[in-house]
Amino acid sequence: MAREKNPPEVERYGNMAEFFTIGVDYGTNSVRSIVVSTATGKEVGSFVFNYPSGHQGILLDKNNHHCARQNPADYVKGVEVTITAALKETAKKLKGFSPEKVIGIGVDTTGSTPIPVDRNNVPLALQAKWKKNLAAYAWLWKDHTSAVEAAKITAAAKARAPEYIERYGGVYSSEWFWAKVWHCLNTAPDVFEAAWSWVELADFIPAVLAGIKNPVEIKRGVCAAGHKAIFSEDWGGLPSKKFLASLNPKLADLRERLFAAAYDAGTPAGTLCPDWAAKLGLRAGIPIAIGAFDAHYGAIGAGVAEGTLVKIIGTSTCDCTVVSRDHKKGEIPGICGTVLGSILPGYYGVEAGQSAVGDIFKWFVEVVCGNDGSLHETFTRQAQKLTPGQSGLIALDWNNGNRTILVDPRLTGLLIGQTLYTTPAEIYRALIEATAFGARAIIERVKEYGVPISRIVCCGGIAEKNPLLMQIYADVTGCTMLISGSSQTCALGSSIAAAVVAGKKNGGYDTFAQAQKKMTSLKPIKYVPNPKAKKVYDELYAVYRLLHDGFGGIAGPVDLAQVMKKLIAIKERAAA
Amino acid sequence: MAREKNPPEVERYGNMAEFFTIGVDYGTNSVRSIVVSTATGKEVGSFVFNYPSGHQGILLDKNNHHCARQNPADYVKGVEVTITAALKETAKKLKGFSPEKVIGIGVDTTGSTPIPVDRNNVPLALQAKWKKNLAAYAWLWKDHTSAVEAAKITAAAKARAPEYIERYGGVYSSEWFWAKVWHCLNTAPDVFEAAWSWVELADFIPAVLAGIKNPVEIKRGVCAAGHKAIFSEDWGGLPSKKFLASLNPKLADLRERLFAAAYDAGTPAGTLCPDWAAKLGLRAGIPIAIGAFDAHYGAIGAGVAEGTLVKIIGTSTCDCTVVSRDHKKGEIPGICGTVLGSILPGYYGVEAGQSAVGDIFKWFVEVVCGNDGSLHETFTRQAQKLTPGQSGLIALDWNNGNRTILVDPRLTGLLIGQTLYTTPAEIYRALIEATAFGARAIIERVKEYGVPISRIVCCGGIAEKNPLLMQIYADVTGCTMLISGSSQTCALGSSIAAAVVAGKKNGGYDTFAQAQKKMTSLKPIKYVPNPKAKKVYDELYAVYRLLHDGFGGIAGPVDLAQVMKKLIAIKERAAA
Repeated sequence: MAREKNPPEVERYGNMAEFFTIGVDYGTNSVRSIVVSTATGKEVGSFVFNYPSGHQGILLDKNNHHCARQNPADYVKGVEVTITAALKETAKKLKGFSPEKVIGIGVDTTGSTPIPVDRNNVPLALQAKWKKNLAAYAWLWKDHTSAVEAAKITAAAKARAPEYIERYGGVYSSEWFWAKVWHCLNTAPDVFEAAWSWVELADFIPAVLAGIKNPVEIKRGVCAAGHKAIFSEDWGGLPSKKFLASLNPKLADLRERLFAAAYDAGTPAGTLCPDWAAKLGLRAGIPIAIGAFDAHYGAIGAGVAEGTLVKIIGTSTCDCTVVSRDHKKGEIPGICGTVLGSILPGYYGVEAGQSAVGDIFKWFVEVVCGNDGSLHETFTRQAQKLTPGQSGLIALDWNNGNRTILVDPRLTGLLIGQTLYTTPAEIYRALIEATAFGARAIIERVKEYGVPISRIVCCGGIAEKNPLLMQIYADVTGCTMLISGSSQTCALGSSIAAAVVAGKKNGGYDTFAQAQKKMTSLKPIKYVPNPKAKKVYDELYAVYRLLHDGFGGIAGPVDLAQVMKKLIAIKERAAA
Repeated sequence: MAREKNPPEVERYGNMAEFFTIGVDYGTNSVRSIVVSTATGKEVGSFVFNYPSGHQGILLDKNNHHCARQNPADYVKGVEVTITAALKETAKKLKGFSPEKVIGIGVDTTGSTPIPVDRNNVPLALQAKWKKNLAAYAWLWKDHTSAVEAAKITAAAKARAPEYIERYGGVYSSEWFWAKVWHCLNTAPDVFEAAWSWVELADFIPAVLAGIKNPVEIKRGVCAAGHKAIFSEDWGGLPSKKFLASLNPKLADLRERLFAAAYDAGTPAGTLCPDWAAKLGLRAGIPIAIGAFDAHYGAIGAGVAEGTLVKIIGTSTCDCTVVSRDHKKGEIPGICGTVLGSILPGYYGVEAGQSAVGDIFKWFVEVVCGNDGSLHETFTRQAQKLTPGQSGLIALDWNNGNRTILVDPRLTGLLIGQTLYTTPAEIYRALIEATAFGARAIIERVKEYGVPISRIVCCGGIAEKNPLLMQIYADVTGCTMLISGSSQTCALGSSIAAAVVAGKKNGGYDTFAQAQKKMTSLKPIKYVPNPKAKKVYDELYAVYRLLHDGFGGIAGPVDLAQVMKKLIAIKERAAA
């Protein structure tokens, strides 16, 4: 009896996997594409493109430091440059590789990063007329110009449609879609009028690759729609015309030109159009996964599942997990969003985050200490020698506001306990600890509302490169910190989504669970809590929460008389 | 009718004054002597001697950063070196000058800086046996090892003799005499046993010059005795034996070996003994003024009088004024001390202070920013361009505790409002502003209790060299800031005291008012409050007081919810 032959499209060479997907990951300053083996999850080629416009890819307004825009031309150029270069690298390294073996593309991006576009999905910024108007560009996630509009949306929703913001922790953020669009209408009405529609970067790139020209035909991801644009099937999609009209009638008009449905990662956004197939040297017609936010595909790339929290730790932090309908106890106050299908199909995606983590350390080293960055190493080495509590310092990690659990971008930093002997390494450690306390506040809040967390997988540059921080996180939270095997979990997650939309019959997988099992991994290292350190941090966390709840406005009046004395008592015990 | 001839001891030469006094000023890191014309207050010669022992003259304990001791040998060597060198310089610069024309010596020092001595007034530290024991050295004012003892003294006084600490603002400080002596007994009992007596540096040097060997015969100044050692005629001198015995019976025994009387600046401490006259090249028998703390003689040198507050602004700040019995409304809560005769004979001396001013800026530049000091200029230049409130920051000036009005050395620093854009120059300005708010808290408290303040004269290095700080002080307090004409007000004040104890008949003066009129002056510059800045600072001061009173423990629970928002609102208005 002859064994069945492999299906004709599969060719084996050496011990390498047969098929590949491409993950494209749009970060804040650059875009990266990786070519991944669907059999092992191994990255076989990659390329990074730094956005050429502005300062490190960001267009700033020197009169308003809340402003952060990007040039959509950088996005379009970036996908072409990085995919072709990553393919070239793969072909060079991997004997027998051919772009024909690529069975799908996945895209993740920052967000909410909405782009005003014309009727043909062409960004206004690419048109000569709008070149000089920053409002016509992409409104990067960390643009905070729209605080007033966000507050008004929060107030309006509280008064007339509380369900709209309940799943956002009761507060609509200035970083999100409607606040930005409305701020454009208020401050650059000409741009607003010229924009036929607005498209999230996560939806824009798949549409470009698929050659979809009509904005209303773009398949929008439920991730961006649900987490940022108040989209839910519970109330028939986007916010009602009536609600939008109560903000401004022009927003109600815009609603028609946005979208009526949103899709989870189980659905393709489209297939690669012949034009782009030619540009990239790939087969036309391969599926393109629904675009999602970097953190969400990053969570998939790190192995998110019910019970597993994925922490992406970089300039800021994003914490993602999923929860089934059975476990979820209502909306979670202060959590940025819980949206059905936003991470894994069939589960509620739970997304939380800290607005600044690495950015705070960077600020301290580069701005305050005026250093080129080399002090990170020095301070880390010195901070490592300190025991918990020994500095006598405590900080709040709010230099860029607080995303979770206070959802207030206008909160600011705080440092307390400094003496004339306080060293910069002590401050550096206190800042790390502050972010760890912030992380603990998120974990405690999520668990309180029934979301199971029995395993934490960390990824991102800081998780990989900063053992001091990881140990502090373990000690502060009391949870073992695992590290994702891939350094590019976002791009890997995108490539996993691509493998799933390609399907098993084409060399991919039929479910995310199957794909994650083969394509994700953990590093051998793990950070286990030290019970003695945990005990000290429990005391410090109580002080943190007193300040956090007091300055964050979720406690009534707070008794501060013992705060400094308490820190000194902890310090003296630590030094003894 | 023939006019009376000048008294025989007066010789005229050119248009120069006829007589001179010497002011000796013991600072934290060095001692300075100046030779001063009694006719004009002009400094005609000077010399500085840096204490050779330890780090910048301070003996540190690497296991306890609260420890700050000094070598009494440095003090003794310093007076000889500086007086002889200053006289030599004077003789070189001033034709016709002769040391014979020096009619008195005045000495001011840091304090409370008690020194354990044997029966012959020889410091234990100078004896081979104790050379290695830091407890046998001089306990510098800023030694904070005795916090526990200070707290116990406060508690004991509250319970059994509230009058003892009422004039200290209700709190006995770890910087002061009894706390230090008791801490020595508790931690170095062998040193305590070996010490026949303890002498304040301010009393020690005049005694050395006068050749007084028996510690109980030393004329102690009311300034040190009253402000630091709980001495008052109201209760028969030092604290009662019974009270001291309740702390430790050995302290009660010590009482007999200290002093039973204390003197104001109107009384000489003695006359120059032949030995020291020979060493210094001066006439034996000239009077030596009672030793006093630097700030008190500094106040005199800056022209203190009823209605005039003198601010000595340096590493820390000392604020001095005097008030007559008629104006004083009881003890002033939180003021370090009000002691009859401690500054000017016949008036209550009112002393307040900030534990760190220049030290905070120095810490920020040198320790946090790791700079050699050159950044002071850069940050000042950048901070000068900011308007009040523009940084969005507010700080508490407690990196070295709070002397007035909270009298709590264990309070610590605080910085609030930082974002990822906060520059070090903004922090630098916020730290200056914090010290200005601290200064305002003192002025308001003192005035509240009837002490008239219609004129503020500043002196010290920072007052002379930092126009930015002086303008901020004017804007924050709403008071015009005048600057003392002399750069060495402490030494000048000592030389004024010397002129007064010498008396008019010997070429000096009979009263301080007469001496100050001739011997003190103002610089032409003055800093006038800007009403617009004052208005912004009034708002910021309200925030400062909220935090100050809350963390300082003099308010009940505090509502913090609006603190960060308020700072942002002020910042946004400032930027507009």
